Amino acid sequence: MIDIDKILENYDLDKLSIATLASHTSLQIVHGAKLEGFKTIVIVLRDRLWFYEQFKHLIDEYIVVDSWRDVCSKNVVSRLRESNAVMVPHGSYVEYIGLDCAENIEVPIFGLRGLFRVEADQHLKMDLLKKAGIPIPKIYSFDENIDRPVIVKLPGAKGGRGYFVASDSKKVFDKLKTYVDRGIIKSIDEAIIQEYLVGVTAYYHYFYSPILNRLEIMGADIRYESDIDGLRRMPLEVINAIGIEPTFTVVGNIPLVLRESLLPKILEYGLRFVEVTKKYIPPGIIGPFCLESVIDRDMNIKVFEFSGRIVAGTNIYIYGSPYSYLYWNEPMSTGRRIAREIKLAIEKNIIKNILT
Amino acid sequence: MIDIDKILENYDLDKLSIATLASHTSLQIVHGAKLEGFKTIVIVLRDRLWFYEQFKHLIDEYIVVDSWRDVCSKNVVSRLRESNAVMVPHGSYVEYIGLDCAENIEVPIFGLRGLFRVEADQHLKMDLLKKAGIPIPKIYSFDENIDRPVIVKLPGAKGGRGYFVASDSKKVFDKLKTYVDRGIIKSIDEAIIQEYLVGVTAYYHYFYSPILNRLEIMGADIRYESDIDGLRRMPLEVINAIGIEPTFTVVGNIPLVLRESLLPKILEYGLRFVEVTKKYIPPGIIGPFCLESVIDRDMNIKVFEFSGRIVAGTNIYIYGSPYSYLYWNEPMSTGRRIAREIKLAIEKNIIKNILT
Amino acid sequence: MIDIDKILENYDLDKLSIATLASHTSLQIVHGAKLEGFKTIVIVLRDRLWFYEQFKHLIDEYIVVDSWRDVCSKNVVSRLRESNAVMVPHGSYVEYIGLDCAENIEVPIFGLRGLFRVEADQHLKMDLLKKAGIPIPKIYSFDENIDRPVIVKLPGAKGGRGYFVASDSKKVFDKLKTYVDRGIIKSIDEAIIQEYLVGVTAYYHYFYSPILNRLEIMGADIRYESDIDGLRRMPLEVINAIGIEPTFTVVGNIPLVLRESLLPKILEYGLRFVEVTKKYIPPGIIGPFCLESVIDRDMNIKVFEFSGRIVAGTNIYIYGSPYSYLYWNEPMSTGRRIAREIKLAIEKNIIKNILT
Repeated sequence: MIDIDKILENYDLDKLSIATLASHTSLQIVHGAKLEGFKTIVIVLRDRLWFYEQFKHLIDEYIVVDSWRDVCSKNVVSRLRESNAVMVPHGSYVEYIGLDCAENIEVPIFGLRGLFRVEADQHLKMDLLKKAGIPIPKIYSFDENIDRPVIVKLPGAKGGRGYFVASDSKKVFDKLKTYVDRGIIKSIDEAIIQEYLVGVTAYYHYFYSPILNRLEIMGADIRYESDIDGLRRMPLEVINAIGIEPTFTVVGNIPLVLRESLLPKILEYGLRFVEVTKKYIPPGIIGPFCLESVIDRDMNIKVFEFSGRIVAGTNIYIYGSPYSYLYWNEPMSTGRRIAREIKLAIEKNIIKNILT
Repeated sequence: MIDIDKILENYDLDKLSIATLASHTSLQIVHGAKLEGFKTIVIVLRDRLWFYEQFKHLIDEYIVVDSWRDVCSKNVVSRLRESNAVMVPHGSYVEYIGLDCAENIEVPIFGLRGLFRVEADQHLKMDLLKKAGIPIPKIYSFDENIDRPVIVKLPGAKGGRGYFVASDSKKVFDKLKTYVDRGIIKSIDEAIIQEYLVGVTAYYHYFYSPILNRLEIMGADIRYESDIDGLRRMPLEVINAIGIEPTFTVVGNIPLVLRESLLPKILEYGLRFVEVTKKYIPPGIIGPFCLESVIDRDMNIKVFEFSGRIVAGTNIYIYGSPYSYLYWNEPMSTGRRIAREIKLAIEKNIIKNILT
Repeated sequence: MIDIDKILENYDLDKLSIATLASHTSLQIVHGAKLEGFKTIVIVLRDRLWFYEQFKHLIDEYIVVDSWRDVCSKNVVSRLRESNAVMVPHGSYVEYIGLDCAENIEVPIFGLRGLFRVEADQHLKMDLLKKAGIPIPKIYSFDENIDRPVIVKLPGAKGGRGYFVASDSKKVFDKLKTYVDRGIIKSIDEAIIQEYLVGVTAYYHYFYSPILNRLEIMGADIRYESDIDGLRRMPLEVINAIGIEPTFTVVGNIPLVLRESLLPKILEYGLRFVEVTKKYIPPGIIGPFCLESVIDRDMNIKVFEFSGRIVAGTNIYIYGSPYSYLYWNEPMSTGRRIAREIKLAIEKNIIKNILT
């Protein structure tokens, strides 16, 4: 168990810096941090340094590593602490540095450290949503007969890679076996089999502020996935000629606003998520999270996945979203909102409440 | 006939407030009204009050009702008038409170009251477009043989629910009969049968300013509909397994900009709409409206529907749209534009020109 | 060879104006120019004048022409030079006024004049990308057997019209022959046959600043094409009934952000494009350009087309894009960025470096 309070004792709270891994939403995070007056740090892979040097005006310190595995090295950790760094974990954080480093790094984290373990396991994840009272798709156990289309997902944030659709048990197991054989997963029960939801996908970005005791809707998006979103505009003759089985590799995000009459339900599910994390993983979620859903023809929402951190879809709204303008009369990205929360916490002298 | 002038005699024009029904585009409307310095009122269903209380900073007064039918009650109407309220009707206004209340409520309305009746009837609606000289799809009469794909629509703003596609007369009538049997419509001729237009949909948001005598293009959007927009990315094997007949329930909106070379045509159709309403429903359209179209491969535009009020697609542009920035060098949503028009009218002492 | 330096000798650099053809991205260009304090000129077809007069607040001078062919007339050229005009060529520039006028007009151009000729020829175009080391789709020669789906494109900026998809040699040639017969192309080898790329399309907007010696990512978009993007949401029964062969007429653009982990590759390809133009078409690209790509399931990017000028997709970002906010802490469209570059060049007294 990391003793964050003790680490913070050696911090100069007037000189906090905001650190993140250079990828995913890091430009948004440092952009927002600068707007709020913080010093910024990115930990960057050597071969991407040239790219992040394009944004020198947003980045005060580069910690260059040869591998993400170095993030938990003594050297990096002590540099971070010397700079009074608060780490902002984003959607690729655990995938890059591994669960063990993510959970145990001796640097204060803005967010809920205890959630990483849950997020890494598809079954724990869906279980948490269920406990929250948020509607989820039917989950098939491995001995159940599959009698309708399902989507099969692999563990971890793989950006949609490895997902596949099937309509019978044989196909599900044959395919999973090839993944085991290729070493992509260790055993088939690492995967999760979910009912294929008919409707449209929608991803809701939230920000829970322990300081203001308020849950804000920050935006919404649709993912842009290769090759599934390309197939939809392929002439049938091409599909027939190529005979493609679609993949769901997320390559980008498209902005979305929801019917206002859906917002109460969306906020309610967000609040349930806040409550369930407070109950089972105290002190509960801090800052950004995302519920990932399908909305059906009767406007029922089922949540098939969540992210307990900032998601890539928020990159759409670097200058604020239609929703964030309703709360803040200034351009407020999720990245900036994180920095604002830290600033408010410092001003109120309760920074410990939002770091784990 | 409501005597608006008489109602306004008892109003303190320096203390006007802007009122709307809490749904659809109400957050945009009150957000814009606050930016222009107005007091704001929402009429809100009791069970949604908690949600709108999240936006206390935007809402000065809540009028809580147990049913939308209460909006025309003496109590609500007198509270509105005590607060010098101007009602802003949005796309769900008539659907919620009913045509009779919508037309007869003794509160000044920003917009064209006389248009509600036309909008409630698909046939009158298409007729108005035709009179305007705006290209529309072929409308089938009920004794005509249907020889190609058509889309059949039910009356009123049903958010796309109940629309269906068919390619022969039998299917059209069989389906409509089930709607009559289920009490969704009273007789089949409440529906309208339109040629299925091949092309892409595009929705144009306009604002007609009687004060500036100018028609502004406020933005454009694409609707995001369940489940039709989900089907397009479903693997064929899933579609075959499920055998779904698509629905067109609008759940959200996606931003769109048009080729600049299409804009003159889009503005021209908007101007024709302004003119036709001036001629047949004086004093003509006031403020926001929307033309809903399909653009074909040769860039011909056919308008299959309109809304004489603010549409949900404008929620995308709460901080201004690519087009509104061309007119206003500040963030100008349609909600804010409404409040600005009212403000300009007060300043010029011609508020009566924009209320009905 | 135009002697730009000599023309500039007679210019009053303190009174430069920014001129463009009224279409495509002209409203964005003049909007941006006004924000930077420039006088603006549009050359406008007589029958569109009424439309551009709606934007009088953005346009200081209208040069009305009866045909785009008049742009190179003595009269127009001398009016432009009297107003110390810098011409900003956009994506429709060459299509409207013809290659000869585009190349030889005796007015300074912001952009690389020498690139027009390359852009007009699909084969030279793909060749330049290849020389740059940017991955491109396989190009079929006309005597090669076509064994998989290909997309066939006609020369020039035709907004996607005339593109078609085929999977065998016979169909390719039959169709091309009809185009020759109808006089759309002179001979079949004006067309280019490219491998049909499986994945999703993405268009990247860049701005190369010779003044700051920096390549900026200005945004990204997806095109909205009729009727292909409408077909994807057509019920199969309708497609079967109509039996449509899709077209790719671009009618609009939809915003997109990319995964941050793709940005280094996207910037790298942009830099390669800058370098190849510097080497083969000195002084190299100036200002806006666009790479048009497909991203496959493994996140490989192949570029199937480019535009050496401002593209219509930038119209999405008239108030800045998620990316432009990372470089500029103010709303920076590509149109405004052009004007800013000219302003910076004047201040540094090196305006000649960015005009050709």
